[in-house]
Amino acid sequence: MDVMQAAERAEAAGRHIIHMEVGQPGTPAPAGARAAVARAIESGALGYTTALGLPALRARIARHYSDRHGVEIDSGRIIVTAGSSAAFLLAFTALFDAGEKVGLGLPGYPSYRHILKGLSLEPVGIETRAEDRYQPVPELLPEGLAGLIVASPANPSGTMLDVGALSALIRWAEANGTAFISDEIYHGIDYGFRPVSALEISDDAWVVNSFSKYWSMTGWRLGWLVVPEAQVRQVERLAQNFFICAPHVSQVAALAAMDCDEELQRNVATYAANRELLLRRLPEMGISRIAPPDGAFYIYADVSGFTSDSRAMSADILERAGVAVTPGLDFDPGRGARFLRFSYAAGAADLAEGMDRLEAYLRKG
Amino acid sequence: MDVMQAAERAEAAGRHIIHMEVGQPGTPAPAGARAAVARAIESGALGYTTALGLPALRARIARHYSDRHGVEIDSGRIIVTAGSSAAFLLAFTALFDAGEKVGLGLPGYPSYRHILKGLSLEPVGIETRAEDRYQPVPELLPEGLAGLIVASPANPSGTMLDVGALSALIRWAEANGTAFISDEIYHGIDYGFRPVSALEISDDAWVVNSFSKYWSMTGWRLGWLVVPEAQVRQVERLAQNFFICAPHVSQVAALAAMDCDEELQRNVATYAANRELLLRRLPEMGISRIAPPDGAFYIYADVSGFTSDSRAMSADILERAGVAVTPGLDFDPGRGARFLRFSYAAGAADLAEGMDRLEAYLRKG
Repeated sequence: MDVMQAAERAEAAGRHIIHMEVGQPGTPAPAGARAAVARAIESGALGYTTALGLPALRARIARHYSDRHGVEIDSGRIIVTAGSSAAFLLAFTALFDAGEKVGLGLPGYPSYRHILKGLSLEPVGIETRAEDRYQPVPELLPEGLAGLIVASPANPSGTMLDVGALSALIRWAEANGTAFISDEIYHGIDYGFRPVSALEISDDAWVVNSFSKYWSMTGWRLGWLVVPEAQVRQVERLAQNFFICAPHVSQVAALAAMDCDEELQRNVATYAANRELLLRRLPEMGISRIAPPDGAFYIYADVSGFTSDSRAMSADILERAGVAVTPGLDFDPGRGARFLRFSYAAGAADLAEGMDRLEAYLRKG
Repeated sequence: MDVMQAAERAEAAGRHIIHMEVGQPGTPAPAGARAAVARAIESGALGYTTALGLPALRARIARHYSDRHGVEIDSGRIIVTAGSSAAFLLAFTALFDAGEKVGLGLPGYPSYRHILKGLSLEPVGIETRAEDRYQPVPELLPEGLAGLIVASPANPSGTMLDVGALSALIRWAEANGTAFISDEIYHGIDYGFRPVSALEISDDAWVVNSFSKYWSMTGWRLGWLVVPEAQVRQVERLAQNFFICAPHVSQVAALAAMDCDEELQRNVATYAANRELLLRRLPEMGISRIAPPDGAFYIYADVSGFTSDSRAMSADILERAGVAVTPGLDFDPGRGARFLRFSYAAGAADLAEGMDRLEAYLRKG
């Protein structure tokens, strides 16, 4: 956040900044989604929907699990939310009592920790290892966790869990009475193997997804939560009281977006080309210790050869090279001082320019 | 919620139901807002906004306080939220620690209590009196409240606090170290005296407002929160982590809606005519003990002459008369058994039909 604000200030002062700090596509919602919105705003009041979301959207999401993951999910288990943010708030509130411990891998999405603290819960950071693709493994998990959050593809690392690794974590959670929360918001943006949903493995997992990333709809604030059958009514009551409903217009957009794969796959092809560029250029400039970039649009790099203060380094790169990157400290309060996250969600030309600037910066030392 | 679902089931079975249970306008967002959305979806990516909201919208809201309330509010204190729901979540989380007590008047909006409980806080219901317009007064307030929530116009009663009554509550809160939260989401829909904002009285009040009611944008899920200067940074961090931002497209719509008063005043004129109809017809059928209907689009009526079980009565009215009304128990777990809430947000023809049906129902006994 500090990087983004500093980048905004620099732009306000007239500088040209290359944005490799952003966590969102530069593309709009797909054309089909925007056309659906244009029709909807002229034809209905777009009042509250039911707390769980438009039935047609919930059914379409259920079909998505059948199409992409080969699992049949009752649409009654799918709760449409105001982004994955609201899904996490609902899941954490429904699952945990004040003071309980919830495990999460480090590096990881910083808001997990902050939301948990905001809800009087205790985040327990688990320092993951490079040899485990920066993902938690059962042997690293402490006792006494009421919950465990896992993300695949992960932010900031971009690494993914295969079916064996994800199963091992879910089985551990089951054996320890730990609620399992699977963050799948980067599903659909992957470059090697197929992303596995926790729903392929267990009906007890709580699964969070979002229209922000693959569907390119960050600002529309729409996502969903899949909960076990027995918890639907509890989460419905919470959702009704906490949020009333997710934005109606965004639900209309999302329903249409789910049939826009041709356009969305072109976005993914852009990310794939960007990723290839970074995987070629970064090692050429000495940044070669990177997490396996399986999915999402991030490269998480060990820059301990250059710095032991990633915050200072990212500020310096912004100042001297005009490139915004994110210090690892945002994701891992300890070891992140030796890491940077490079987002490649921007356009190809911008990224090429960013690589040139970064190389020149590093060469000067 | 039970009434709404029962009404939906009845409609699904082919019955014609008059909706006097709804808490939302039947009108869409104003035409100017919809036109702004149509332009925005073709011209930009509509990605994340900053956590606090679009600067232009925050500035426009500040101007609204100047125009309507004669107070100058720094736009830096205005936080755009995903509906008043998100504003309450932010305020409660920022202000209170787990276990603290928060006072609220009964009857009152039920989600206050449920959100507080969801956040491990303790709602303290204060049974208000008819002679106080069903609003809290200092002499009824217990010691030990970390916060106090007040709504004017109120839901379900529709009553308002004048400047003296609101000031007395704010001064009590200041003297007792109690955070004061003013729910002003029905401002703009009033029939007698001008609604007073807590910001006219104190810079320490936390004020919640919404584009749902006067601006007729329920499903767009947009509102705002005004916080004291010293708390802005804390709430910004919470908002960033809890929500990332409010829906961008809704922020665009809201900014335009704030210049659509001509259309919106026509909506208010419809409510005013509806209100006159109910104030004439309800007493004719023996429902004459009603809270002063100062604002919003509700009439809260003592129906103890007919029932001591408002839930059964509302179910019976739905079943036998095809009119959906809300039992007072939703708003006041004790005395609400003798009250019903009638919403008059529907169209004039529907309401006339609803009154005919209700009169026939009551005449049959």
